[in-house]
Amino acid sequence: MAIISFITDFGIQDEYAGVMKAVILGIDPSAVLVDVTHAIDPQDVTQAAFMLESAYRHFPAGSIHVVVVDPEVGSRRAVLFLEAGGHRFLAPDNGVLSPVISRETPAILRRLENPALWLPRIAPTFHGRDLIAPVAAHLSKGGAADDIGPLLPVASIHRLGDFRARPDASGAVQGRVVHIDRFGNLVTNIDLSVMTPQGGAGPDRPLEVLAAGRVIAGVSRTYADVGIGRPLALIGSRGYLEIAVNGGSAQAHFGIRKGDAVGVRPRK
Amino acid sequence: MAIISFITDFGIQDEYAGVMKAVILGIDPSAVLVDVTHAIDPQDVTQAAFMLESAYRHFPAGSIHVVVVDPEVGSRRAVLFLEAGGHRFLAPDNGVLSPVISRETPAILRRLENPALWLPRIAPTFHGRDLIAPVAAHLSKGGAADDIGPLLPVASIHRLGDFRARPDASGAVQGRVVHIDRFGNLVTNIDLSVMTPQGGAGPDRPLEVLAAGRVIAGVSRTYADVGIGRPLALIGSRGYLEIAVNGGSAQAHFGIRKGDAVGVRPRK
Amino acid sequence: MAIISFITDFGIQDEYAGVMKAVILGIDPSAVLVDVTHAIDPQDVTQAAFMLESAYRHFPAGSIHVVVVDPEVGSRRAVLFLEAGGHRFLAPDNGVLSPVISRETPAILRRLENPALWLPRIAPTFHGRDLIAPVAAHLSKGGAADDIGPLLPVASIHRLGDFRARPDASGAVQGRVVHIDRFGNLVTNIDLSVMTPQGGAGPDRPLEVLAAGRVIAGVSRTYADVGIGRPLALIGSRGYLEIAVNGGSAQAHFGIRKGDAVGVRPRK
Repeated sequence: MAIISFITDFGIQDEYAGVMKAVILGIDPSAVLVDVTHAIDPQDVTQAAFMLESAYRHFPAGSIHVVVVDPEVGSRRAVLFLEAGGHRFLAPDNGVLSPVISRETPAILRRLENPALWLPRIAPTFHGRDLIAPVAAHLSKGGAADDIGPLLPVASIHRLGDFRARPDASGAVQGRVVHIDRFGNLVTNIDLSVMTPQGGAGPDRPLEVLAAGRVIAGVSRTYADVGIGRPLALIGSRGYLEIAVNGGSAQAHFGIRKGDAVGVRPRK
Repeated sequence: MAIISFITDFGIQDEYAGVMKAVILGIDPSAVLVDVTHAIDPQDVTQAAFMLESAYRHFPAGSIHVVVVDPEVGSRRAVLFLEAGGHRFLAPDNGVLSPVISRETPAILRRLENPALWLPRIAPTFHGRDLIAPVAAHLSKGGAADDIGPLLPVASIHRLGDFRARPDASGAVQGRVVHIDRFGNLVTNIDLSVMTPQGGAGPDRPLEVLAAGRVIAGVSRTYADVGIGRPLALIGSRGYLEIAVNGGSAQAHFGIRKGDAVGVRPRK
Repeated sequence: MAIISFITDFGIQDEYAGVMKAVILGIDPSAVLVDVTHAIDPQDVTQAAFMLESAYRHFPAGSIHVVVVDPEVGSRRAVLFLEAGGHRFLAPDNGVLSPVISRETPAILRRLENPALWLPRIAPTFHGRDLIAPVAAHLSKGGAADDIGPLLPVASIHRLGDFRARPDASGAVQGRVVHIDRFGNLVTNIDLSVMTPQGGAGPDRPLEVLAAGRVIAGVSRTYADVGIGRPLALIGSRGYLEIAVNGGSAQAHFGIRKGDAVGVRPRK
């Protein structure tokens, strides 16, 4: 028995996620299933990678993380098993495991190549159900990772080039919005932790944040540090720079979309 | 202890699904609860029937499938228990069990008529919570089906007339879009399996698909069989003909809505 | 092991709810997790209070209800533990527990003040993950409530002033729409139970309902009591007055928004 978490772009109007769970429970009835999100923007591998980084570390060691954002399903792209940092991951080889590979060493990488573990009939459009779900259940019930398929060199994994943006020596960094959350908070890929420990920031911090031609002075600690309706920058709960509006939506306030540029520079 | 799956039109902004689970866990704390979907279009019995067909077969034998799409709640329509193909189903008698009845024989049909199993107070607008949930839990904890209510003749069940469209002798078939998935794939009720085994189709297949006045030649195997942005027809993971756009939305591409006609005919 | 239910405004596109579950399962792997809803309108404490009232009573005694709608996260507002009516609640002190306090006595109230139970690092923007989730898991695995923090006088809790509207001696009451459900039903805060037991209403009831300048005569039992497309008032499954359209959306029919006034008065 293990925890199996899910990050997909299946949405929730379809039966796709439920059917993956059905397959898993048919093999390991005691698996504990946790939805992280099924609302990744269709085929947005970068957003899924970002969600995975934010989520997996909070699960107990030994958890199995299933990531199915798979624009190339049915083509020759590999499906991977990765074991790193005490966690296990199953995902197509499209870069979505980049944040894990960049954080956790050593890592063990395998390619799913044992059809004996899969469903008997493979639909070319739903490897999540027919390959990944039964392999997750195999692992969950204590099956060996060796059975899944051959080892691959970790260096062979597909990586997203510009996943994380970090400041240069001057403290300047150019990043972008990788996710907009339910509250309209603009989540960037800017990691300021090399400059300051998370939570150590404050409005007196000698930085300014640039977005949509506007400037936000300083990095706040929480939303209530500014007045209602006022914009702020802060280190979000994921550890990345976010732009928010206290009691409102930064997305509406700034008119920003996913992918738009955000900069940080030392305050003059 | 059994698996209980849910297909409803409750949506997820309300507490309806959570409250059904609360009632079930109060009676059988070890029930394993799996959401298939709560996003059936309000009162769309045909779409719910389609989802049920796609989902239930992937669950282990003995699972209990709760389907609550119930436009006539509080009227005199019956609430049914169906046992067929190793699965158990609870649903109003409005046609939603049609695909099960058409696939699985023999079947046992009962009408829920034992208030001793129900909640003490029945709200006329929420039989899912007050009748169906406690009966599901009764079954889940090993209670007898006999207790639920009297046997009914299987032939008495309400059926959807035109649920599945199949080709005639010439290979032609006229069907319609019964569901549009999260990716904008147009899922039809056209079942080509009488012509070819699922997955055995290919772009060389001598068929053409007609939708919104346009023609798609052949039936592909997977999205990547055509270029990015190009439309294709394929046998989807549910076993029915779907129309898709590689890396895009067929719904947007074709301007098609649920219910619109789709045809298949032999290629000239 | 206990049931832990969730009511939040996190939405489902983000990993927030999944990460709370991850934290809980890391502490109590046998906790049973039930989503009531994550779709509370952002920071709408009144709507969350309403959902909580509708949901918690259906869970078995001993359940733990986590409510995270927390506009003031990171400020000095307290996070509370409430034990009342056989249930346990964890929520910020912003009024969201009002309906429980008004229904259940006696009650025990504590303030979360024991960092030894929390995650080692507290993000100022996500107390749900870093404080509430680990405390819920502490309780779920049988930990003592005493460990959580000191007792507070129950009277000190923040209350929503006008949560429930009840008729005056003449039978008239002025309330408002507190929630619009997935079907477009307008859920009000009007509680007619002091006049008649739930379910005892009927179209012959000598009341009329006023909304958006229109009058609905009588209180029906269920949707099918009127013709398709016709509006009606009824006592919804939550016990409050709702305005609905049989087979349609009252929201669209009346052009009403959350917060709009609804009145009830004796029929002339």
